[in-house]
Formats: sequence, C-alpha cells, structure tokens
Amino acid sequence: MADSPNCDLKSLSPLQLFERVTEQGEKVRALKAGKAPKDEIDAAVRMLLSLKLSYKATTGQDYQAGLPPKDLVLINNGTNKEEDEDFVDPWTVQTSNAKGVDYDKLIVRFGSSKIDTDLINRIERATGQKPHRFLRRGIFFSHRDMDQILDAYENKKSFYLYTGRGPSSQAMHVGHLIQFIFAKWLQEVFDVPLVIQLTDDEKYLWKDLTTEKAYEYARENAKDIIACGFDVNKTFIFSDLDYLGTSTGFYKNIVKVQKHVTFNQVKGIFGFTDSDCIGKISFPAIQAAPSFSSSFPQIFNGKENIQCLIPCAIDQDPYFRMTRDVAPRIGQPKPALLHSVFFPALQGAQTKMSASDPNSSIFLTDTPKQIKTKINKHAFSGGRDTIEEHRKYGGNCDVDVSFMYLTFFLEDDDRLEQLKQAYTSGELLTGELKKVLIETLQPLIAAHQERRKQVTDEVVKQFMTPRKLAFEF
Amino acid sequence: MADSPNCDLKSLSPLQLFERVTEQGEKVRALKAGKAPKDEIDAAVRMLLSLKLSYKATTGQDYQAGLPPKDLVLINNGTNKEEDEDFVDPWTVQTSNAKGVDYDKLIVRFGSSKIDTDLINRIERATGQKPHRFLRRGIFFSHRDMDQILDAYENKKSFYLYTGRGPSSQAMHVGHLIQFIFAKWLQEVFDVPLVIQLTDDEKYLWKDLTTEKAYEYARENAKDIIACGFDVNKTFIFSDLDYLGTSTGFYKNIVKVQKHVTFNQVKGIFGFTDSDCIGKISFPAIQAAPSFSSSFPQIFNGKENIQCLIPCAIDQDPYFRMTRDVAPRIGQPKPALLHSVFFPALQGAQTKMSASDPNSSIFLTDTPKQIKTKINKHAFSGGRDTIEEHRKYGGNCDVDVSFMYLTFFLEDDDRLEQLKQAYTSGELLTGELKKVLIETLQPLIAAHQERRKQVTDEVVKQFMTPRKLAFEF
Repeated sequence: MADSPNCDLKSLSPLQLFERVTEQGEKVRALKAGKAPKDEIDAAVRMLLSLKLSYKATTGQDYQAGLPPKDLVLINNGTNKEEDEDFVDPWTVQTSNAKGVDYDKLIVRFGSSKIDTDLINRIERATGQKPHRFLRRGIFFSHRDMDQILDAYENKKSFYLYTGRGPSSQAMHVGHLIQFIFAKWLQEVFDVPLVIQLTDDEKYLWKDLTTEKAYEYARENAKDIIACGFDVNKTFIFSDLDYLGTSTGFYKNIVKVQKHVTFNQVKGIFGFTDSDCIGKISFPAIQAAPSFSSSFPQIFNGKENIQCLIPCAIDQDPYFRMTRDVAPRIGQPKPALLHSVFFPALQGAQTKMSASDPNSSIFLTDTPKQIKTKINKHAFSGGRDTIEEHRKYGGNCDVDVSFMYLTFFLEDDDRLEQLKQAYTSGELLTGELKKVLIETLQPLIAAHQERRKQVTDEVVKQFMTPRKLAFEF
Repeated sequence: MADSPNCDLKSLSPLQLFERVTEQGEKVRALKAGKAPKDEIDAAVRMLLSLKLSYKATTGQDYQAGLPPKDLVLINNGTNKEEDEDFVDPWTVQTSNAKGVDYDKLIVRFGSSKIDTDLINRIERATGQKPHRFLRRGIFFSHRDMDQILDAYENKKSFYLYTGRGPSSQAMHVGHLIQFIFAKWLQEVFDVPLVIQLTDDEKYLWKDLTTEKAYEYARENAKDIIACGFDVNKTFIFSDLDYLGTSTGFYKNIVKVQKHVTFNQVKGIFGFTDSDCIGKISFPAIQAAPSFSSSFPQIFNGKENIQCLIPCAIDQDPYFRMTRDVAPRIGQPKPALLHSVFFPALQGAQTKMSASDPNSSIFLTDTPKQIKTKINKHAFSGGRDTIEEHRKYGGNCDVDVSFMYLTFFLEDDDRLEQLKQAYTSGELLTGELKKVLIETLQPLIAAHQERRKQVTDEVVKQFMTPRKLAFEF
C-alpha cells in the first residue's frame, strides 16, 4: 500500500472515506494488539491521521467512530439536507435553528402523532390527576398508540413502563433527569411497574471502555436514578451485562428480534456500515427486547402479552420504530411511546446537553457555586446586547436557554408566564432571569445530592435484583 | 411494482438475484404476519416463485435461505472455482471428487497444520495411551496449536475441551458421533473438563423453528450425546437459549467478541449478505465465546486463562479462525483445534452425511433391519459392475462408502487392512464388505440405543445444570 493516502482519496464519497478511516483505525488497533514493530505502527498511525484530515476536508466534519457522514444518514432517513437542516439519530442531535429542532417536522418525518389537548385531557380524566408540566408545556410532545394504552387502562387492563439510559460516564446532567421525572410521575398516576435498562453493553461497544468500567458506570448511574425517588417495590433497574446472564426470558426475546431484522434494515435506520462491529449491528435488538413483558418473567409471571409504554427522548424512536415493526411478527404487542424534546445545551438549542462536553452541561454533582457560574457564563441569552436595547425591545424567550430550562423545572405555570411576559417586554433583564434559574436549580440539585447520599450499594443491589414487584399478573 | 419480475432480472448478478428472492420472501412473511388481503399475499407469493425460478435458471442451484450463491462464497474465500471444485463452509460441503474433499488442499487454504506422525507419537508419549483410531487413520487430520497444548500439558498445565452441535432435529446420525467419540477419548486420556454447546439459538435463526422447538431438540440431542458415555462429573452440556440467561460470564465474552469483529469480516468469512438477519450476523460470536474459560465461571472458578482445545469437523474452522483472530485483542488465549474429515453420505463422499436427507444417513434410532436395508440399497460401492470383473480387477476402497465407514468404526487395524487387501484384490465382493459394515454398525447402534434409554430427563438436567466439575482451577 502506498504511504500517502491522498493520491486517490479525492474521488471517494464521504461514506467511502468514512469506511477507509474506520478500516485504518482497526488496522492500527490490530497492529498495536499484535505488538507489531514500532515503525509499522507509526506508519499506520500517520496514514490514519492523513485519512482523517481528508475526511474532514471532504465532509467538513471531524471523523467520529461509529457515526457515518451525516448527509448519508439524512438521505437514508428520506430527508433532504437543503430543506431540513435538523439531524436526529440516537447518537447526534444537531440543528442550525437557535429555537431548537423543528419538532412538528420531526413528527411528520418519524410518522408519530402529536400529543394534543384532547389526549392530555384524556390522561387527566383517566388518572384523575393534573397533567404533569412536561405534558402541559409540550416537553413530551409526540406519541405512538398512547390512546390504545388509555383504552385498555379504562378497561382495567394494566401496562408497564420501560425507559433506560446509556451509562457512558459517572456524570449525569440535569437533562438526564427529564425522562426519569416523567417516568416517576407516570408510574405514580397509573400505578404500574417500571423497568429501567442501563445499556452498559452498548457503551462498551461504542466507547473505549472495559466491560467492568461500563458496569461500574451503570451502578453509579443507578444511584442517581434511584435518587429521583423511585419505589423499590415497583421498579426494576438492570444492567444488560448483568441481567442478560440472569434472565431466562431476555435473551430469547433478543434472538427473536434479531431473527426478524436484517442488516439492510439497521443500515437504513441507524446508518451502520460494513465496517461496524457485529455488536453494534445486533445491539438494537437488545434495546428492543425490554419492550416485551416476557423479558421479565420474574415480574410478569412469564406473561407475554402485557402492553409496554416507553417514555423517552425522540432520538431513541428509531429503536422503537424497529421494535414495533418486529412485534407482531414475533407474536408480541407493539410498545406505545411518549416522546420528549431534547434538553438543550447551555450554549443553545442547536444541540442537546451532552455529558461529554462539561461546558454544555449542569451536572447532578455540581456545587451551588458551579451551577451559578455555568449559567452566568455559558447559558445562551435571548436578551439584547445593551440594557437600553433590552428595555426597549425585550428579550426572546424562544432562544433563551435559561427560560427553556425554567420550562422544564419551574412547576408554577403562573410564575413562568409572568417571567415570559416580563422578559419579552424588557422589564426583566437577562441577569435577573438567570438568577431565577439559578435559584430554581440550586435547591433542586442540592436535594437530589442529599437523596443520592442515602442510596447505598445495598439499595442499588435491591433495585437491580431480578424479583417480583408489588403487582399481580 | 410490476407483477412479472422477469423483465429486468436477466441483468442481475447471482448475488443480486439472491437478495431479491430473500427480500421477496421477507415481504411474503410480513404480509402473512400482518394478515394482509389474500390477493395481495397471492401476488407476492407468485412473484417469489418467479424470482426463485430466475435464480435457479441463472445459478443452476435451488435458492436456499441464508445460503448465498456458491460462486460468490468461493470468491470470498479467496479460491478459484476452476482450479478447486471443493466447497466447504459451516453449512455446506460439496466436491466433485468421489474420494471426497481434498484435505491436503484444505489445510493449505485454511492455513492449519497437518497432524503428522511426530505429533501422533507425541500425543502417545504425553498420555501413555495408544492413539485413537481416528488419529491413526487420519480422520482427525489437521490442527492448530496442538503442540502448544502438549507443551503446556507436559509442564502440568491443564486445559479444557469444547465441542458442540447444532440441534436442527431430534435425529442424530452415526456421523454426528465422530466428534463426541473423539472428545470422550481426549477427555479420558488427558483427564480434562469438557463443555458441549448446543446451538439451539443458531438453529432458531437459520431454520423455520420456534425457540421452544429448538430447545426441545437440544435436550433430545443431549440424550444421544450423553449416551456416548460421558462422565457427568467432568462434562457440562448447555443450550445457548438456556445457558445465556444463567451465566454471568458467557454474555460478557460474547459482547467482547462482537466488539472486535466487523460486518466486513463476517461477510468475508461466512458469506453473509446485507439481507441476512442481524442474528445470523452476530451469531459467530456465540460460537466463539465458549473458547474462553471465563464463559464458565462455575467450572473454572472465574479463571480467564485456561487454554481451550476444540475437536470439530473442519467445516467449523471458520468460526475458530475468527475466534483466534479476536482472542489476543480481548486478552484471552487462542483456542487450539483438532479438525476431522467429514463423514460421507451413503451415496458417496462428494458430500457429508446430512440428517435432513434420510436416505443419506444412518440414524442412531435406526433398527438393525433399517441399517441393513440402507447400506445394501444406498451405500456407494467401489466394486465392479459384475462379479467377474470384480474378481478380475478388484474394488476401489478410495471411493467405497462401506469401506470408508469401516475406517471410522472398525477398531481392529489388522482386520481393516485385511479387508482392504481382499476388496482391492477382488477376493472380497461388495455384498461381503457391506455385510461386515452391517455387522459392525448394528451392535454399535443397538448398544447406543440401550444406553440412551438409561438417559432420563433427570440425567439430562444434571448434565445441563451449570455447576462445579471434578477439577480444581
């Protein structure tokens, strides 16, 4: 092979370049693992760097392992880049719009249904409870088959909740709380079991982690999840790496899903390439399987037909579109879904908060001072450049990250409306709005930290032990 | 879509046609599962049949699900059809040569080593036992790293044996016994633990079977395996569908292998296509994982570095070439291998005995009369057309299936040599040779049936329960 990769690279498509980089990366790893001579490794590394540069020059993006060039995925998703700049898949959320992703377009593209006032009213009637602020404010904005869940519920037929988290680090941020806060509310108002999957196997496959480290993160993340206040008698938290080896039902469902999904399909849905490892390619079945109650024989007494409801951020929908496609073919009910918007990064709603970028995130471990500093320093403002202009023209709540965060965390509707009016009119300054957010988040996170301290290893073990819950099936 | 698929099919490659048939088959299944209108299903079925006809016209082969056109796989294996007509992969063995596959060429193609007299003598010295007839007669003819196993064994470092079976039906035939007879001998002369994998998940993925049926076949096959005389204190038999959900170590090894093998690699090794289900694509990792002792923490006390030796037919080598490639990258020792030739079909050594073709097989359930009839009627003869010619020119042991079977099952070397001389010289007639085979197999199978009767469900349960064996690690 020629030492310089540049001679023929210009003619390659972004995807071909992507595959070349991936292959070269694998070659470097193989050489290192095989303890090849240093000069051979050095040459391969130089080639890898050169390929990565070519990739960036061609695509305008940094090479990211497992993440093929975005244009390609957009094409696969059947969308046109020029008319729709939003990119959403389970690994990346990106838009050029400071207001965030266009969720109405996403509903059309994904083929889900909008959560409208009628549905919210029906949830209120069925549960006899005021709808959660996440429903009132369109934070959970899209669904699949929630009406069927309610039909059945009104006929005394129960269901169970399934949500999850990929434990890529010890650090969880406030955005991660959204689905757990909502799952807890759903669990309480409907009084149903909840299973929470920690995909430590996924993180092992996608990241440079050992299985031991991924499992450790899963256990640490479980503490933060438990600290949301879940009832141990109604909730089962499991790590894939651990639970797969202790459940008689889970693997059977995984292999059933795996039989009914082709590589062509996961290529189309997730943008996998021929250079991806077979673990990534088959992983979607592992996220699918908890949608079927027979994956939890200890909870459901082996029953196969219990309906599942999945509250999750909309970027996880591709997994469950696939699951819903497979379900009838393996004799299982399709899971229903409730989709949330993304939790914006501090820097703005063009992307979601990410634990791997500390400046974009407020962590659940942050001190009151860190929270204050981060919000003051990084939270993107919809205010004007000068106080005078702000007083005159007012701020823009649609792009103001502090205001967005308050819609997630401030319970009082009237107060939120007042803040919006005052900020839009220019009466309230950016610094003042940020102060309200800081004073909302500081006690909330402090209380979380206090509860997390109570979560001992013994408590984690209880939640993660396969067992019967306080329900009869 | 046009109703007639023939218009543009002539321009398609065999692989493209194969993918079209596969996709259409999936479409038919989806329509049936989705209870589509009858006329829609009928139209799709007509299209499928038409596509299958085009496939056969183009390739000269019947379409077989999961088995892409052979030329393609040959190319993938880096061989040239014109110069080498043998086809060997984990699902198919085919040669145009009545003597059977050219095993010397296979050693070169697979990159393994010949089991030569030196190695056989070394096994004899190490164990103090006469080498098994399968070694003396070249039935186990190829190996990988057997010398390293012996180096370690001579330094008092133990190892374990791993073999397996895909339980595609209740029926096992005499050819299936070969690896178990040899594994039992190895276990006895080296005094080591043996694990036997029953890949019921594989059979579920490849065949039209439920998981329940595949598991039932696994348990039935276990009875035949146990009837070979294994010691329950030294042997663990497991079904994947069952054991994966009861082992803390197995899935961790599977996911480690899955992280280190790409789709490109399994495509090259096994000929998978984009239309294959993700279960097939990731399955090789499940056959790989038992090569690592940490898949059996209950046996090896969690130890990760115990060397593994795999006796198997050479068609299984692709799985373990892949495993050996991955092993050092996940910090595990490479498994060593002992490869056997294929057990020929009754009709001749061009293909191996297959349980799915009853006329090609002598089953372990056959009566003495059935054995006699099958051999007399179907066993390909190397004899001459008339008694006169046979007396004059003699028979050809190289292509005579009865003689081949005797090399597998007749223990007495002198007797076998006498038979060969007598048949080759024309002194012994085909009917007489067949009679010797019948009289060898009848008592052997009757004794097997007698032992199998003793194997109760309780005994199967004992063998299949994860537990400590009679070894210290």
